[in-house]
Amino acid sequence: MVFPLYFLNTNCRSFKIPKKSPKTSQIWGGRFSDSPDEIMKSINASIDFDRKLFAEDILASKVHATMLGDQEIISTEILKAILKGLDQISHEIREGRFEFKKDLEDIHMNIEMRLHELIGSAAGFLHIARSRNDQVAVDLKLWVRSSLDSMDLAIRSFQKALIETAEGHIDTAMPGFTHMQLAQPVTLGHHLLAYVEMMGRDRGRISDCRKRLNENPLGAAALAGTSFPIDRMMTSRALGFDRPASNSIDAVSDRDFAIEYLSIASIIAVHLSRLGEEYVFWSSSQFGYARIGDSFSTGSSIMPQKRNPDAAELVRAKAGRVIGALSGLLIVMKGLPLTYGKDMQEDKEPIFQTHDTVMLSLAAMTGMLGKTTFDKNRMAEDAENGFSTATDLADWLVRFCEIPFREAHHIAGKIVKLAEENSVKLAELSLDQLRSIEPRIDERIFEVLSVENSLKSRTSFGGTAPKNVKKAILKAKKRFLN
Amino acid sequence: MVFPLYFLNTNCRSFKIPKKSPKTSQIWGGRFSDSPDEIMKSINASIDFDRKLFAEDILASKVHATMLGDQEIISTEILKAILKGLDQISHEIREGRFEFKKDLEDIHMNIEMRLHELIGSAAGFLHIARSRNDQVAVDLKLWVRSSLDSMDLAIRSFQKALIETAEGHIDTAMPGFTHMQLAQPVTLGHHLLAYVEMMGRDRGRISDCRKRLNENPLGAAALAGTSFPIDRMMTSRALGFDRPASNSIDAVSDRDFAIEYLSIASIIAVHLSRLGEEYVFWSSSQFGYARIGDSFSTGSSIMPQKRNPDAAELVRAKAGRVIGALSGLLIVMKGLPLTYGKDMQEDKEPIFQTHDTVMLSLAAMTGMLGKTTFDKNRMAEDAENGFSTATDLADWLVRFCEIPFREAHHIAGKIVKLAEENSVKLAELSLDQLRSIEPRIDERIFEVLSVENSLKSRTSFGGTAPKNVKKAILKAKKRFLN
Amino acid sequence: MVFPLYFLNTNCRSFKIPKKSPKTSQIWGGRFSDSPDEIMKSINASIDFDRKLFAEDILASKVHATMLGDQEIISTEILKAILKGLDQISHEIREGRFEFKKDLEDIHMNIEMRLHELIGSAAGFLHIARSRNDQVAVDLKLWVRSSLDSMDLAIRSFQKALIETAEGHIDTAMPGFTHMQLAQPVTLGHHLLAYVEMMGRDRGRISDCRKRLNENPLGAAALAGTSFPIDRMMTSRALGFDRPASNSIDAVSDRDFAIEYLSIASIIAVHLSRLGEEYVFWSSSQFGYARIGDSFSTGSSIMPQKRNPDAAELVRAKAGRVIGALSGLLIVMKGLPLTYGKDMQEDKEPIFQTHDTVMLSLAAMTGMLGKTTFDKNRMAEDAENGFSTATDLADWLVRFCEIPFREAHHIAGKIVKLAEENSVKLAELSLDQLRSIEPRIDERIFEVLSVENSLKSRTSFGGTAPKNVKKAILKAKKRFLN
Amino acid sequence: MVFPLYFLNTNCRSFKIPKKSPKTSQIWGGRFSDSPDEIMKSINASIDFDRKLFAEDILASKVHATMLGDQEIISTEILKAILKGLDQISHEIREGRFEFKKDLEDIHMNIEMRLHELIGSAAGFLHIARSRNDQVAVDLKLWVRSSLDSMDLAIRSFQKALIETAEGHIDTAMPGFTHMQLAQPVTLGHHLLAYVEMMGRDRGRISDCRKRLNENPLGAAALAGTSFPIDRMMTSRALGFDRPASNSIDAVSDRDFAIEYLSIASIIAVHLSRLGEEYVFWSSSQFGYARIGDSFSTGSSIMPQKRNPDAAELVRAKAGRVIGALSGLLIVMKGLPLTYGKDMQEDKEPIFQTHDTVMLSLAAMTGMLGKTTFDKNRMAEDAENGFSTATDLADWLVRFCEIPFREAHHIAGKIVKLAEENSVKLAELSLDQLRSIEPRIDERIFEVLSVENSLKSRTSFGGTAPKNVKKAILKAKKRFLN
Repeated sequence: MVFPLYFLNTNCRSFKIPKKSPKTSQIWGGRFSDSPDEIMKSINASIDFDRKLFAEDILASKVHATMLGDQEIISTEILKAILKGLDQISHEIREGRFEFKKDLEDIHMNIEMRLHELIGSAAGFLHIARSRNDQVAVDLKLWVRSSLDSMDLAIRSFQKALIETAEGHIDTAMPGFTHMQLAQPVTLGHHLLAYVEMMGRDRGRISDCRKRLNENPLGAAALAGTSFPIDRMMTSRALGFDRPASNSIDAVSDRDFAIEYLSIASIIAVHLSRLGEEYVFWSSSQFGYARIGDSFSTGSSIMPQKRNPDAAELVRAKAGRVIGALSGLLIVMKGLPLTYGKDMQEDKEPIFQTHDTVMLSLAAMTGMLGKTTFDKNRMAEDAENGFSTATDLADWLVRFCEIPFREAHHIAGKIVKLAEENSVKLAELSLDQLRSIEPRIDERIFEVLSVENSLKSRTSFGGTAPKNVKKAILKAKKRFLN
Repeated sequence: MVFPLYFLNTNCRSFKIPKKSPKTSQIWGGRFSDSPDEIMKSINASIDFDRKLFAEDILASKVHATMLGDQEIISTEILKAILKGLDQISHEIREGRFEFKKDLEDIHMNIEMRLHELIGSAAGFLHIARSRNDQVAVDLKLWVRSSLDSMDLAIRSFQKALIETAEGHIDTAMPGFTHMQLAQPVTLGHHLLAYVEMMGRDRGRISDCRKRLNENPLGAAALAGTSFPIDRMMTSRALGFDRPASNSIDAVSDRDFAIEYLSIASIIAVHLSRLGEEYVFWSSSQFGYARIGDSFSTGSSIMPQKRNPDAAELVRAKAGRVIGALSGLLIVMKGLPLTYGKDMQEDKEPIFQTHDTVMLSLAAMTGMLGKTTFDKNRMAEDAENGFSTATDLADWLVRFCEIPFREAHHIAGKIVKLAEENSVKLAELSLDQLRSIEPRIDERIFEVLSVENSLKSRTSFGGTAPKNVKKAILKAKKRFLN
Repeated sequence: MVFPLYFLNTNCRSFKIPKKSPKTSQIWGGRFSDSPDEIMKSINASIDFDRKLFAEDILASKVHATMLGDQEIISTEILKAILKGLDQISHEIREGRFEFKKDLEDIHMNIEMRLHELIGSAAGFLHIARSRNDQVAVDLKLWVRSSLDSMDLAIRSFQKALIETAEGHIDTAMPGFTHMQLAQPVTLGHHLLAYVEMMGRDRGRISDCRKRLNENPLGAAALAGTSFPIDRMMTSRALGFDRPASNSIDAVSDRDFAIEYLSIASIIAVHLSRLGEEYVFWSSSQFGYARIGDSFSTGSSIMPQKRNPDAAELVRAKAGRVIGALSGLLIVMKGLPLTYGKDMQEDKEPIFQTHDTVMLSLAAMTGMLGKTTFDKNRMAEDAENGFSTATDLADWLVRFCEIPFREAHHIAGKIVKLAEENSVKLAELSLDQLRSIEPRIDERIFEVLSVENSLKSRTSFGGTAPKNVKKAILKAKKRFLN
Repeated sequence: MVFPLYFLNTNCRSFKIPKKSPKTSQIWGGRFSDSPDEIMKSINASIDFDRKLFAEDILASKVHATMLGDQEIISTEILKAILKGLDQISHEIREGRFEFKKDLEDIHMNIEMRLHELIGSAAGFLHIARSRNDQVAVDLKLWVRSSLDSMDLAIRSFQKALIETAEGHIDTAMPGFTHMQLAQPVTLGHHLLAYVEMMGRDRGRISDCRKRLNENPLGAAALAGTSFPIDRMMTSRALGFDRPASNSIDAVSDRDFAIEYLSIASIIAVHLSRLGEEYVFWSSSQFGYARIGDSFSTGSSIMPQKRNPDAAELVRAKAGRVIGALSGLLIVMKGLPLTYGKDMQEDKEPIFQTHDTVMLSLAAMTGMLGKTTFDKNRMAEDAENGFSTATDLADWLVRFCEIPFREAHHIAGKIVKLAEENSVKLAELSLDQLRSIEPRIDERIFEVLSVENSLKSRTSFGGTAPKNVKKAILKAKKRFLN
């Protein structure tokens, strides 16, 4: 038999904590005679950014240590020392008293070395059955999971703002655009609910990603698993994971969750950028649909009359940055052999930056929406103009005359041309004028040429009719704001 | 009341199919006096690529027409004519007899105009309560959905090949690498199962995306819904959608499903690229782990001795193309105001190319794996070398002596250095030599220095011990091959 | 001495062309017993896209053969046969009579094998001192060089159209925007000349890239150079290269020129996308600045009143595709060890597609510009509105009163607010109203509040004053249209 | 006449500096009643990153002020006060005593407000004929220009290291790889010189970009130029620009230089990533070609025997980040209407991060190369193996027998197969064995089968023959190290 029963043979449990900790140098330096070059230190150190993981790192260490204690791999005395030391480090960091050292490369070593200073050699037992490979994987997963939760909440707030604004504009007419051309009248409420749908899908993606990532890499050790009798079920439960990762090699090589996170963030950012673009032209004087409140506008240093929609522009632009981050990480991981490669250290900055970018963008859009006044008259006027009920006209021809749709469309086109030449709205053409183009038209046609009637008529499921919008708001509240 | 009861007023149902179809020009040209410039035609036409959607387009049209008939919006006679005409067009295309015309821009117009030729003006009724905006959305969704299904199957086949190969290598030792340096022994079976996990997550993403996209945009019409009494539940059911899309504006503006599809494909491609990279060095003469069969190798036109792993390199490279496609579509959609913009026409080529790329890459990796011979001796030899059991040595020191892990690590480092200086393996050091570094070492240490024992000992959940790998294979079969 | 004098020992020159060519299979298959799998063929073959290189391939082969003849490495008889055979192949391809075979993988092998059929074994001599590695590098370089030349010409045409349009609008007032807000009046001519500058830089980049890529890889053979006494100066001259590439390894590993090409194309595409965006809102009814002629507009299948700026939108969107192609190739090349890897086959499609995209986009923008009518009244009206001369007002306060700029800005801001509250233009405020805010103001102020005067005053170098614009047009013609 | 002669009318010159500066709030806030929301401040402020531009900003301001003085737009007294104030601010920042305020948004306002505190209202005159739009453009251009200069120098150092290392390995044999398969022998010197070429092209791109960007945007003011009689030639000279930018709109809208900078950086990063990849496998134990010194290696926390090429991996990975930054900025600029949009604020972080990344990567590769020991024996051994002289064999058959190249290739392939089956090198086959395949072979063939002779024979221009490499080193020193 390779190993005798574990608990009989290990002496770890009887280890006495020595008074003085041995002098430690570079943690992995046992076999090296030269110390690292300054440039090497600079490129290698990640402490400037991975310190963000301190809370996750300490939590995972506490759970790991507790499990080692439960499994009688380390003694209760050592466990207590470790837990106490980690708690103290946590306080030091939170209070800004912790000195992060570049020489110690990363957050893991910074914490470990401090633990050594605090509790001496006992700290060394924390790393039984663990490696930086599974440690960094579990830290980052916990961080990403928590970022997903924050994003979900922030999106919910944004949806709330959208729904509430929509509620005030159930029957506010505005032009629906395709190709930035007036197409058909819609209501502002309906338009805003489109964003509620988009953001709802974003939340769906967040939820799916969260479930998928929720497998615990801790215990994969360096890559092969370990011979220590660890309990990965216990650490999984304690860290809120659904189960341990099934394969130790995959557990340390995988950054799917980080890529998926960035791709979700990219879609969120693209959604926000679309509203950002709309805000930019809505707040132009030519459109004049939206006036962004002072608290979300900026002025110009040379042109005092300006009210710049800076926040909307920044949100629009930041999508570029998020997409760049996604590309970046996909590139880093592409063609990377298993298992861990140092390349993977480049996963953190894009994630941290993306979290900040998306959270800020969501907050800005939510805040700006709350401070926006929509100019109903301007929107209604535009909805009236531009022959936006031409489709209604064509539909009427289909329904009330014996005219196939394509032919009706052709006739409607001719009528639009006539109105354009006479510089009048469709509804302002006389019956005679209309009949000069299509003799079968009768006066009932005027019923469908007004914006109000057009809106009311769009009662198909998902259509813009105010009564539909009202129902849609109720449903959206149930789906998204519970 | 805006509209009298629909069925009472529409005359569509009594429409008689005329003998001759009227001459139709550019479908939307009613109001235009000039015809499009040749360059305009070139940039505008999508028929060269969107003809791939013909089956989806015809299916959706048949369902739409049937619904119009069921709702008594069009007469049975017209419905029959439309269905018959569409069936004939389908045959013509499948048999290569259909003439695609650039002048008709896209697949929708090509089919519609042909329908006109075949059944005359009745064809015009097909477009009641529909626009190209919702038509293209439904076509593309159906296409993407079916591509997702194909990918899922192809991944399943690949997983099968991986699992079967793993089954033959449950206890085949190979070095586990980190940083491309020998780290710890693993088994080839365990290594291959890491890919089964990755591809399993890919399938999870596919399944989530499929569910999320499965809302029917048809019936959103141009963007606002319609006043015709359509039944979107019926068309949803008939097309296999779970429900109609809730918001007509979102329905025609949304390309989330396309972006999500490309992001899933990117992760798949990155996974495959990692195996591609491994194949490239495994099949180098320096590694010599894998010999790719003739049917998946190529030679050189000038160097006759070469056996090039071209397929592996291409799969590795193609990840770049897929990521580029993802970036491309995200960029296209970024900052696009609602609702439909012609920009969105640029969604199709990246999707079609990505489908081909990913399907081909999966087939190539699956095929290549089946034709690969692994050199167990070379792998075992490497696993023996490189002091790959140094961790086992450190673990032993923790367990059997009173030595904290970090100190044990330091001692192991010294022993490795000694072995290196003497050009021997760890197991070939004498007890005296070992004791010269750490006097507490006794002969039991030799038990853990062999690769075989190292492997057997890694019994933690997810670890590489052959008995674990065996179980993992059974589990993987249940999870992925049912 | 390794080799005796070359010309004494080679027997190539006396080689007699045999009547029958030997049956050739896969060109590199000498050592392989199995033929390639169908999937392998599919993923490996590039003939579907690299056939575009046929002219370059044949030209380079003719030059190579001629050089081999000049150097007396092959006999005149063989040379003649090769040249004649290649010419025939060229004709066959141009006339559409050439049968491209997937089994022969790529354009090089397709041509080579056909040459074999035509002239028998003599064809085999063409590949002395050459490999597919340098062959594909030279082909692609020639292709890219010629694409750069085409793009340069197309940009020149676009600049011509811009300058000519600008010439007609030297003093056409329009609002200059920042943040899509009215900022200061400019002239349309000045605005269009901004694009002339951008495109001028694009041409500079093209010219630089062309110079840099113009080193001949031919003769690098597989990667190490050759022992045959080739003359790389001669082939360089004949192919229009400035010199042979200095290092054989670099010559076959390098794809910088392809990446630089795509990055130049990306910037061009971004430039065009900016004008595309401007076109989209200029042609919205809210702006109404530009009416795109029928030949560059499209209509809607359901909304007959629409005039969609499809070309502008497509040009805007296509920038995304080009950027995606650039990303894609950077990713393919990233981390690729020297020298040639099959990964590099993925360079061609992005290049070919980008060429088509950029050429089409340039043509579309050039064509559309020629068919655009600008609405001077609408633009002038907007330039009058929006308090666009507020900067002039502030400048006046600085100049004519003792007021530091920042304070003047503050005062101007108050005056704008006053005008806004009274719904009047700046020039419509009474002197009393102005003095109620700043008593030092006198009636001379009205001189600067008109758009015309504002424009005329901007005479600083590069400013928008019509006389500047006039000069700038003359200068632009000299710089760009000679 | 619109304006009387400027110098007669302006009173600026007689302005007395008041003792107390007026209370200033948000610089552009004159017309706003609400102050910005906290979220707005967060998203809008760029001071956290654009403070990097402080030196450029102060320099440009000093030059601008001096020009205003020279042109008699401001008085000497005011000029002196401004210059003195700016110098003091410069000291404060360099000494870390400057308090950067988020409320003041960006570096420009932070400096301006501090100037106000220091010199009172006189500070307000600095902004005559200037806007933040041209100010930020000039600052960023100066910064990018200086970064290009730094990169050029850093690349030169790297080339120096490459050339010096190559000098020590002029005839060190190593295998040349294609597809990571042994192809033909080359020398290590030749291989390293390939990188010298690549980096030389990078320097060419840097130099081209530097020339192209070297046009001065200052004086474009907000976008339209100015009516103040500024002298843009003077400011251009003083700031080292070749000339003022020709078009004021372009001057403030253009970020080409930033994109071109990032695309150059991307290609540099890709070049470095290729060497990074080579380092990773060269330092694997299977290859064993390179041993990276301790000062550029790292160890493992759990596997004491590891020597990880972390720097090489990080350099490889960082290419992904740089490409991501390039994508990001292209996306930001895509579809952006002229002139300045706040979106453009997103240009700075990618640039600053890329500068750091590329400079660090260059330093790391330069440093690592200096600390690398190449194992000549291992490389020579591999060059001997793998039938790497098979091409020489084929070439011999062409030259010394009457055999066309393709046939010769076929024969060489058979001989390789024979050698492989007998597990011998090519040179170890007997003449009889060789003749069993091709009877025309005679003993002279053994002259070309050795690696040494193969190397010596590759004397074509750019080939790997040691005497070529020697010459290439001399030439490279002249081209790149002068």
